[in-house]
Amino acid sequence: MALHHRTAVVMSGGMDSSTLLWQLLDEGDECLTVTVDYGQRHRKEIEAAQQMAAICDVPHRLVNVAALSQHLTGSALTDDVDVPHGHYAEESMRATVVPNRNMILLAVAGGVAVANGCDRIATAVHAGDHFVYPDCRPQFIESCSATLAIATESFGDVTIHAPFVNITKAEIAARGEVLGVPWAKTWTCYEGGDIHCGRCATCVERLEAFDLAGVTEPTEYADSYSWRQVVASPPESVNG
Amino acid sequence: MALHHRTAVVMSGGMDSSTLLWQLLDEGDECLTVTVDYGQRHRKEIEAAQQMAAICDVPHRLVNVAALSQHLTGSALTDDVDVPHGHYAEESMRATVVPNRNMILLAVAGGVAVANGCDRIATAVHAGDHFVYPDCRPQFIESCSATLAIATESFGDVTIHAPFVNITKAEIAARGEVLGVPWAKTWTCYEGGDIHCGRCATCVERLEAFDLAGVTEPTEYADSYSWRQVVASPPESVNG
Repeated sequence: MALHHRTAVVMSGGMDSSTLLWQLLDEGDECLTVTVDYGQRHRKEIEAAQQMAAICDVPHRLVNVAALSQHLTGSALTDDVDVPHGHYAEESMRATVVPNRNMILLAVAGGVAVANGCDRIATAVHAGDHFVYPDCRPQFIESCSATLAIATESFGDVTIHAPFVNITKAEIAARGEVLGVPWAKTWTCYEGGDIHCGRCATCVERLEAFDLAGVTEPTEYADSYSWRQVVASPPESVNG
Repeated sequence: MALHHRTAVVMSGGMDSSTLLWQLLDEGDECLTVTVDYGQRHRKEIEAAQQMAAICDVPHRLVNVAALSQHLTGSALTDDVDVPHGHYAEESMRATVVPNRNMILLAVAGGVAVANGCDRIATAVHAGDHFVYPDCRPQFIESCSATLAIATESFGDVTIHAPFVNITKAEIAARGEVLGVPWAKTWTCYEGGDIHCGRCATCVERLEAFDLAGVTEPTEYADSYSWRQVVASPPESVNG
């Protein structure tokens, strides 16, 4: 019989973390979800995360650390950048404006896990993130998990579970489709509109994943521009 | 010639972190100080940290993460506890109400370090902390430093410097005395009074360190009760 886990799932409201939640519940984990808000998230993302937790009838914790942002920018970085367009692999993504973002996120989730009697946290980092973010690589997750286990020794060695770390976003799309993730209720876009723009880096990444997985999903996109076209010839500017 | 470091010093305003700042500046580091407020610090602590930075003419960053506290407590823990009296080694200290506190603190300091072009962060954890907090042990610091270095690879591998990790608080007192740390301007007490109570766990720890180091310091304490008496016979209650 498999070990029963009580898991704090790091939840952005996007397709990856939603699939992770569905998978862990399918495997029998008792879950709660944690969303960390750096003050940069659009309402849509947070609402999607809350909605995913509500659909699964699991508790949701929204942790606001917006006050961090002002201290996590400096001369080398800026928080006053436009949302990048084009393919995610070619652009500096929004997340890069919060240095050490993933370690802070996992440390906070570790604290929430301890406070709620969880034995592990789960993150949906995947293979496509590796070459964009150093803090999404398998070696980072392993090291961070070891660090968290030492820190939480008195609470039963909380560790990090990252089952997607060596699979692609397309494989996540395929898994989520089988598990019945309600795609139209997940939120990915960085633009902050009423519907997905279909053109920002994360929308392009999402469209690509579903396309490669052969999944037809019901999400409405403002721009029907194909992700293949974006990758082949990134637009100079969408708005200007 | 020694490598020049630009260091983000984790600063509580107490005797340990103040000595650390004085030592690093003495060694030629370019420093900035970082105080993380979990919403539990008394004004006195924060003012002491700011004052130490001002005396040394180094920048100070106060990072407020008070919003975390409500999520970092749960059934197993409570934030509604009285300040423990007696010896620090026998009592559950205030810090235990923020689970995974040190990892969150170091992750945040790592972000501040990156944003300010620092190549390392420094923490004043010392040998006396080891058996009280798992996240103050040398193996935690080593693991956390490795994790931070991986996460910050794009910014030159920020690491953690913990020069006091294997020395006692009494040795820190002796070092600080030589370096000329203005003890009366540091702040240790958890009670929130106008002057140090002389009786709470951290005051007792402070008095013990100065006594063992043979350092006479000018701090005023409300209670002249000897730390030796407290350790020998902890008072049941001071206020009741």
